[in-house]
Amino acid sequence: MRWGFVLVLITYDVNTETSDGKARLRKVAKQCVNYGRRVQNSVFECILDNAQCLMLKATLEDIIDKEVDSLRFYYLGNQYKTKIESIGVERGIKVDETLIL
Amino acid sequence: MRWGFVLVLITYDVNTETSDGKARLRKVAKQCVNYGRRVQNSVFECILDNAQCLMLKATLEDIIDKEVDSLRFYYLGNQYKTKIESIGVERGIKVDETLIL
Repeated sequence: MRWGFVLVLITYDVNTETSDGKARLRKVAKQCVNYGRRVQNSVFECILDNAQCLMLKATLEDIIDKEVDSLRFYYLGNQYKTKIESIGVERGIKVDETLIL
Repeated sequence: MRWGFVLVLITYDVNTETSDGKARLRKVAKQCVNYGRRVQNSVFECILDNAQCLMLKATLEDIIDKEVDSLRFYYLGNQYKTKIESIGVERGIKVDETLIL
């Protein structure tokens, strides 16, 4: 079965009141924005195929402090445009603008 | 078509360095945990039918400051258990424990 490109929503909970926490968030963001956009301070919408997803997960797992941080992945599939709604300010760049097929 | 109960992921971006921001996050959390669990500081997994979803969205829209906050809704459907992965600490209570059908 071909996995194809799907939207993976990544949410990261880290205490940014510490400088270590801030640094980890910066590193996580740097990795995630390679594949999509930062829609909230610690929420990233990434367009990934299966291999990229495994690689990104492993990279992020190395960055975070698993004793105190929480990282969650939500798989929205490839028909994701109808599955997202937004209220309030919008930030970041469009997912599609960074998507190279 | 019957909408049924689906998982709606709600992510809220608010500046909690201000007391107003903190208060809004508390109010948003209070509404969301009626329908599910707080999995991260500002990420909520809610189990909602269509009517509850419309009601909750309207309530949250009234709480937030649309000029500065961001609220996003992701519709994960009813087969959500296979669509979520977690690394690091887990917090909150199971979605199913608060689900009364």
